[in-house]
Amino acid sequence: MPASPSGAAAGPGEGPFRVGLLGHGTVGAAFATLLAERADEIERFNGRRPVLGGVLTRSRGDFEEILADADLIVEVMGGIDPARDYLMRAIRAGKDIVSANKQLLSQYGEELFEAAREKGVRLRFEAAVAGVVPVVRVLEESLSATPIERIHGIVNGTTNYVLTEMSKGLSYADALAEAQRIGYAEADPSDDVSGRDAAAKMAILARLAFGSPVHLNDVRYEGIEQLQSDDLEYARELGLGLKLVGTAERIDGGVSVHVLPTLLYGGHPLASVSGPFNAVTVESQTITEITMSGPGAGGRQTASAVLGDVVSVMTGGARPPAPPLELPLITDVRSAFYVHLEMEDRPGVLAAVTKILGDNDVSIRSVVQRGIGEGSRLVMVTHRVLESSLRKALAEVARLESVRARPRTIRVIEEEFV
Amino acid sequence: MPASPSGAAAGPGEGPFRVGLLGHGTVGAAFATLLAERADEIERFNGRRPVLGGVLTRSRGDFEEILADADLIVEVMGGIDPARDYLMRAIRAGKDIVSANKQLLSQYGEELFEAAREKGVRLRFEAAVAGVVPVVRVLEESLSATPIERIHGIVNGTTNYVLTEMSKGLSYADALAEAQRIGYAEADPSDDVSGRDAAAKMAILARLAFGSPVHLNDVRYEGIEQLQSDDLEYARELGLGLKLVGTAERIDGGVSVHVLPTLLYGGHPLASVSGPFNAVTVESQTITEITMSGPGAGGRQTASAVLGDVVSVMTGGARPPAPPLELPLITDVRSAFYVHLEMEDRPGVLAAVTKILGDNDVSIRSVVQRGIGEGSRLVMVTHRVLESSLRKALAEVARLESVRARPRTIRVIEEEFV
Repeated sequence: MPASPSGAAAGPGEGPFRVGLLGHGTVGAAFATLLAERADEIERFNGRRPVLGGVLTRSRGDFEEILADADLIVEVMGGIDPARDYLMRAIRAGKDIVSANKQLLSQYGEELFEAAREKGVRLRFEAAVAGVVPVVRVLEESLSATPIERIHGIVNGTTNYVLTEMSKGLSYADALAEAQRIGYAEADPSDDVSGRDAAAKMAILARLAFGSPVHLNDVRYEGIEQLQSDDLEYARELGLGLKLVGTAERIDGGVSVHVLPTLLYGGHPLASVSGPFNAVTVESQTITEITMSGPGAGGRQTASAVLGDVVSVMTGGARPPAPPLELPLITDVRSAFYVHLEMEDRPGVLAAVTKILGDNDVSIRSVVQRGIGEGSRLVMVTHRVLESSLRKALAEVARLESVRARPRTIRVIEEEFV
Repeated sequence: MPASPSGAAAGPGEGPFRVGLLGHGTVGAAFATLLAERADEIERFNGRRPVLGGVLTRSRGDFEEILADADLIVEVMGGIDPARDYLMRAIRAGKDIVSANKQLLSQYGEELFEAAREKGVRLRFEAAVAGVVPVVRVLEESLSATPIERIHGIVNGTTNYVLTEMSKGLSYADALAEAQRIGYAEADPSDDVSGRDAAAKMAILARLAFGSPVHLNDVRYEGIEQLQSDDLEYARELGLGLKLVGTAERIDGGVSVHVLPTLLYGGHPLASVSGPFNAVTVESQTITEITMSGPGAGGRQTASAVLGDVVSVMTGGARPPAPPLELPLITDVRSAFYVHLEMEDRPGVLAAVTKILGDNDVSIRSVVQRGIGEGSRLVMVTHRVLESSLRKALAEVARLESVRARPRTIRVIEEEFV
């Protein structure tokens, strides 16, 4: 295409920076509005003006036309198909990509990264994890100078809101209904409450932090549906608060990624994160720890993160993905645990339980015993122990005649740096 | 210089990426160590290996030789002279710059930015503000898509440590002595405790957030030396915690920047930041708020932030400064205040005080009265009020016969988003 004298109809690489938009739901519409609002300021700082090129909705727009016209493709459709196909085609056409699609990145990220690396294409996805909290950028850039050891994240605002309400005394069902009423939870909340949404985000963060491919299927996750309200009460007595926490950590040359209901001591940086907020703590020997927090979602907030990525590509502050390392996945990790036992309060029962725990290297940090007779409950917090050792010990405990229900456990994170 | 066949002696722009280091104190030495440790990993991700070129110490090294050999200059000398002269010469020679020098940037930043803009030189300074907390990068890049309204920061670890200890009951003198003993405060702590260090950092953040030049002299600051321990006790009764908080905000088309002892409600994101940590909260209508926190200082932490900047320049994730906007400085701002009055508890005194406050548009949110007779104290928290209105009202109050000492005030920040 010959250069246009007016510049108004300039193609890719000349004149305004043309953004092709795939998806025009809540985030897409907010992005289009925000782009128009901020174009002057972005041009002032960066010398080039971002403008909206073609827009693909469910009913309108032609992908090939949008692609040919664009300097960069923004994908906010969500889901695997057809987003996966569109992005692969855009990468093969040499277009830079900004995506907010956590499902796609956590399941087909390596395919996209590999293609982007081959083509020298930039692929940015700040909005896919933790809303406006700029954890992707910080991991990619600020922390590239330091080896990261561990990430803990509250990366699902829906479950954090539900747990915050439960901590005030609401039942799980009532808290979830309230979240749905005010728009923090979807009509079908299963992706959120099962922990699967958080698992996708932790897979993406683990890939960034450790350079090793982590598929959604590699992430062990448990949600919040099974939590018992008496567990929350006992935890409070022990000075602990409950959150759904994702953890990605480097262990013995491998990588472990999991999402679990987690009890936190009051001094932990994530303990005070309440309501629909997200927060991520990054630990490294060099920097000790950094914590970032902010609202977890919202169309305009997500659009702001998407636009930040667009600006980053415009100004050269992004590079194609690096080739992956291949680190082994570790599934058996050390942690402290909360353990809840229902048992008959008969002479010798406590002694039998503690002997089994001791024989399996499980040592107790604190204990609360409640009730007498058949309804007695023993609630303990262990010191850090290999999870397999605890499971083995509890299987033995469950076989004791006096133990009346399957032992329940919740992971506990102790303060480490404060 | 002809290209060397081995590549080992390659000049600027070829082979390894050569870093000239100005300053070899705690941070400089830590940087040299960290650079060597991380060179493999940085090369793997970015394709080019960073290596230490020349080093300038107090007793060794030649600046011109170091400059000629370098792709980038790292300045960790601190102070104005000779750092200012060296950086201007480096910029004129077209070398990119990474500096940790808050004094220099808060007083001669515009001179450096202007020269860097003319020469197309990148100038990065993450380590100058808030230690490893990546606030500079987040303001420059992530948030370039959103108009920032306000920044609150705890940006001096020494004073935050002292205030944390005072909140446990230590006197100011004892808390400061403890900070000096464990290395959190210098032998001469005046730059920290006066608020001047925090003011320099807030000037730099305000420049980044609003694009308008802010000189250290434009920042109004008060330190923590004048705080009375009974103020801390009353504040606790009112549910407030005390921090030294810097604020940069956009008001009525202008900019206001100040550092003040500040009372925070328990729910504010900065209220839980304790010990030598730093934290910054960024507020914007688009993103609501983001809070970032981490350790405020330490040679290795600062070196890590410096190395992050070096990597950012190596990978093109940085650009020369944009031209400044010129926004007016606003000094009279609205805030809530804690007010402490010593007075005789005689009939009619409280009525006289509240009438004066009401006549000046000062309305009271909560009040505590203590003691009887001559030693009586009235402690109030106001709603948000223009500071000049409060000062005028308190000048009138001070003229009442029953008021026995100059009224004391401390700024209060209310929760706004939680």
